[in-house]
Amino acid sequence: MARFKLTLEYDGTPFYGWQKQEDGPSVQASLERACEALDGAPVLVQGAGRTDSGVHALGQVAHIDLTRNITANKVREALNHHLRPDPVAVLEAEDVDDEFNARFSATKRHYLYRIIDRRPPLTLDKGQAWRIPVALDSDAMHAAAQALVGTHDFSTFRDTQCQAKSPVKTFDEIRVSRLGEEVQITCSARSFLHRQVRSIVGSLAEVGLGKWNARDFRAALEAAKRARCGPVAPAAGLYLVAVDYPADASKN
Amino acid sequence: MARFKLTLEYDGTPFYGWQKQEDGPSVQASLERACEALDGAPVLVQGAGRTDSGVHALGQVAHIDLTRNITANKVREALNHHLRPDPVAVLEAEDVDDEFNARFSATKRHYLYRIIDRRPPLTLDKGQAWRIPVALDSDAMHAAAQALVGTHDFSTFRDTQCQAKSPVKTFDEIRVSRLGEEVQITCSARSFLHRQVRSIVGSLAEVGLGKWNARDFRAALEAAKRARCGPVAPAAGLYLVAVDYPADASKN
Repeated sequence: MARFKLTLEYDGTPFYGWQKQEDGPSVQASLERACEALDGAPVLVQGAGRTDSGVHALGQVAHIDLTRNITANKVREALNHHLRPDPVAVLEAEDVDDEFNARFSATKRHYLYRIIDRRPPLTLDKGQAWRIPVALDSDAMHAAAQALVGTHDFSTFRDTQCQAKSPVKTFDEIRVSRLGEEVQITCSARSFLHRQVRSIVGSLAEVGLGKWNARDFRAALEAAKRARCGPVAPAAGLYLVAVDYPADASKN
Repeated sequence: MARFKLTLEYDGTPFYGWQKQEDGPSVQASLERACEALDGAPVLVQGAGRTDSGVHALGQVAHIDLTRNITANKVREALNHHLRPDPVAVLEAEDVDDEFNARFSATKRHYLYRIIDRRPPLTLDKGQAWRIPVALDSDAMHAAAQALVGTHDFSTFRDTQCQAKSPVKTFDEIRVSRLGEEVQITCSARSFLHRQVRSIVGSLAEVGLGKWNARDFRAALEAAKRARCGPVAPAAGLYLVAVDYPADASKN
């Protein structure tokens, strides 16, 4: 038995989310089918984060245990072969210690949210960004967002279905920056509540539109009440970019 | 009767190309349907370039004549409404003189070709770039490509179905640059032969792979024989980025 760490990219559009579902396709089920085709026996694929339906990944991480004696390179090649035509790619496979756990060993998670603020509908970016038909003030969004940094009760930005024991989380960093007709929001934390990023982005959009000011945003956070959250941003703009682990996780 | 210049973005994937076809969907037919819904009578949509099946546009240009008395802003809004759900967007509509012709007034056309050189299959960029599973030497590609600049007989890089009277064209500029795991090729000329960019990119890829050197590339151009062309690059990586016109084309 050998454990492998997988770094994954996927287009979340056709999936009901990361997690296996009874009623529809999931990224986890796609991967488990590919792993079983490779290993000849059922394999559990454990991910670092359970992305929602329609959410994308540029660097999701998962771990698997295989019984076959096989190199990490061959694991990557074989899984990419068996994953076709699903829009899931294994970017990297690495040999790791049995203690490595994609979910519990993670020290930081990085997300990106893409907003395109233009009036015409999206074509090439459809399903991969949130279109807002009015120009956003990205500087005001960035300034307001800094209230999130540090340790807070994030109840305002937490989905009512969230299973986490505590609404208290520590936010390391959040940046809002403009690239042409696109506003990119990047943020990092050890872990996130359910729909926390989309709840924050939807509320920051209120700031960008001039409906809220930085004080309104801070007051919404400090109220620690779900009712104070702005509209939740759609899944299509969200990307799990990377997951960090302690430096000694890899065997190489 | 008033003439409008339209700047268009589209995802070429579901289309048989720009030009109206008997047997499948085209960008031109999508636009003509939307224009007829707006104007109440058949409208001819004339484009600057006839992009092939699967080729995208970030800034294709077309012109139309409408009988209705309507502002340019309303033309854009109404066409975007009627185009739904087709992946075609009118980025801009402008009032222009009756002498303006999207095809014949154009002074320069700008193309982009995206190659992603990585082993894992594409997910989010599927249909929007050419994946080459081996690392390319983009500097060698850029150096070789400079042989194209100036006026040449481009028979080597011309599709056998090309209808142009002469294979002689003037290439203004070509750049090959790397952005992370992506190699971008941008080029500009007054006009192009059929499949000229894809023929050039496919041949430059041979240089990037080390199969051809800069001398081989120059010799292929100078031979002026279609048989000397490398493999033609796939449509999915090609984007018509912009079309230039004399400064006085717009009425505003």
